[in-house]
Amino acid sequence: MLTLWWDDTTETVQMIDQRALPARLEILSCRDAAAVAEAIRNMTVRGAPAIGVAAAYGLALAAWRSPATDPADLRADITQAAALLRATRPTAVNLAWALDQMLRIADTPGLTVDKLRHRLLAEARRLAEEDIATNRRMAEFGAALIDDGDTIIHHCNTGSLAVVDYGTALGAIRRAHEQGKRIFVLVDETRPRLQGARLTAWELAQYGIPYAIIPDGASGHFLRRGEANKVFFGADRVAANGDVANKIGTYMLSLAAHANDVPVYAVMPASTIDLSLPDGSDIPIEERSADEVLNLTIHGEPIAPAGAAARNPAFDVTPHTLITALVTDRGVVYPPFHIHLPRLLNGAQSGSL
Amino acid sequence: MLTLWWDDTTETVQMIDQRALPARLEILSCRDAAAVAEAIRNMTVRGAPAIGVAAAYGLALAAWRSPATDPADLRADITQAAALLRATRPTAVNLAWALDQMLRIADTPGLTVDKLRHRLLAEARRLAEEDIATNRRMAEFGAALIDDGDTIIHHCNTGSLAVVDYGTALGAIRRAHEQGKRIFVLVDETRPRLQGARLTAWELAQYGIPYAIIPDGASGHFLRRGEANKVFFGADRVAANGDVANKIGTYMLSLAAHANDVPVYAVMPASTIDLSLPDGSDIPIEERSADEVLNLTIHGEPIAPAGAAARNPAFDVTPHTLITALVTDRGVVYPPFHIHLPRLLNGAQSGSL
Repeated sequence: MLTLWWDDTTETVQMIDQRALPARLEILSCRDAAAVAEAIRNMTVRGAPAIGVAAAYGLALAAWRSPATDPADLRADITQAAALLRATRPTAVNLAWALDQMLRIADTPGLTVDKLRHRLLAEARRLAEEDIATNRRMAEFGAALIDDGDTIIHHCNTGSLAVVDYGTALGAIRRAHEQGKRIFVLVDETRPRLQGARLTAWELAQYGIPYAIIPDGASGHFLRRGEANKVFFGADRVAANGDVANKIGTYMLSLAAHANDVPVYAVMPASTIDLSLPDGSDIPIEERSADEVLNLTIHGEPIAPAGAAARNPAFDVTPHTLITALVTDRGVVYPPFHIHLPRLLNGAQSGSL
Repeated sequence: MLTLWWDDTTETVQMIDQRALPARLEILSCRDAAAVAEAIRNMTVRGAPAIGVAAAYGLALAAWRSPATDPADLRADITQAAALLRATRPTAVNLAWALDQMLRIADTPGLTVDKLRHRLLAEARRLAEEDIATNRRMAEFGAALIDDGDTIIHHCNTGSLAVVDYGTALGAIRRAHEQGKRIFVLVDETRPRLQGARLTAWELAQYGIPYAIIPDGASGHFLRRGEANKVFFGADRVAANGDVANKIGTYMLSLAAHANDVPVYAVMPASTIDLSLPDGSDIPIEERSADEVLNLTIHGEPIAPAGAAARNPAFDVTPHTLITALVTDRGVVYPPFHIHLPRLLNGAQSGSL
């Protein structure tokens, strides 16, 4: 099952509602770009690569639903929808990257409105298919870094649900498992939205990979006691120097791994690398609603006093000095990242299987 | 209101049920040592100093309820109760320390059964009163390290509820607030049992100290961005070299503070210091039930798939190299801790106001 797809019969974008998992597997149907934008904003769909493809499909929907009868009017509607989708979440660069790919198609001269609609949908579908192929390549590169007997700490969700299919960091773990390597995963629950406990544990159970959920604050304990020997996570944006923006908590996990000489691997498609930013300090960090921190209950009781205040930065930046290697669909990149990342994006493969 | 006390009318130990907070303020009444042992085990009462005093009262209850008519039989009952209480929680040394204080009284020769009972209750009461005085002294030493305008990250609960009254690390913050210093507290929610969100936020609201709850994984983000300039927490056991066992997540918080040149203060009574252990590696780390990690719900839905596995170490050890100073009721201790801690316990005050 894919995380999201275009449905030809209803001409809608369908997606797994990730807010309902693991209790219920529900599908949300989006009829227009505004519905996709809301689904990205409220995290019905999440994960940097998945929201990139969702935004592309959202733009295809905008073209499909537009009442425009000439190309200029259609382009105006598409431009407006692109602005709406772009504003949903600021940190993951894949969203802007996918929209820019789509807008390039929208600018193709000499096409009729109908042709443009079909070209945009075809491009969104291509991006979705490319995402799966990209994940498969990344997984091969990542799996080569995993040994039989490894205990891996994994942060957030980077599996099928974070992409169209297969996964980034969890894809590498899944591939290593398929290769017959025995792996145990310590799953950071990943507060506040608990993507580790809710989604990664659900995926690992399906793949038959043994795991245990841990509080985010416990990973340092396991690293210090030598009970984990690798750390894997994804990325929402990588700066030119290798600084990695990823789900909140990644920085502290990386610090703890580095302090205990445990290698740290960040796994992402090349589209996550943003060479326009020299380092991580300019990556915009989304701050989400305090409700996400406070809305838990234990046996029906709230976890915080009425009226409690909370801060909720959704991402943090891990400095490149804590990263052992960046694993991409084009190869594995080792420091110095500021030298190797531009080479990677220009087509020279930095690593090999 | 005290966290726990002896009630003369019912001859029972009364305690705030900390599992019900912040939703409800409930009082649990314990009629015998077994009830106190269960209350310590299930964390009705928690916090290293509080469970020490609870165990002392538990031993007084054992004497009070014992049917013994001669001192030897009474001592046998007390010894049995002490073993039961001692086995409840292994990490905090205050529990063993308080029981040993009580057992010394029980060994007083030449006393009748009735006299022994009264002497044991008096000793438990003395330990409870001493705890409050100890906290007041610690708070003065700690408050002197806090400046007007500080933003402090605080882990777990170290306030009134963790002791008989006032608090250790939160006592220092409270005292600085009473001195008119403007302080903002970033409250680590402290998974899995959320003592920060449930108890520390509740206390801070009562004291009128502004705060925001944060996920444990977010503290590194605030430290790296310079949005917090001090870290305060308590301790469950301190080894002779200054290694600190404290609530899970303390180690990662300390690593993040140290990496960003933010001072780290651990606040504890001298009874938390265990010179019998050369370093933290021999401190027993309690692993509690997986249920504590998995029993949360969001809008009524479970946070993990049915049958999910979890690991739940309740404490971790922060190496002394990450600790700026230990704040005790006898003064502030700076490195080298292995030189200064024995001096402190032998009566030489290492710090002053």
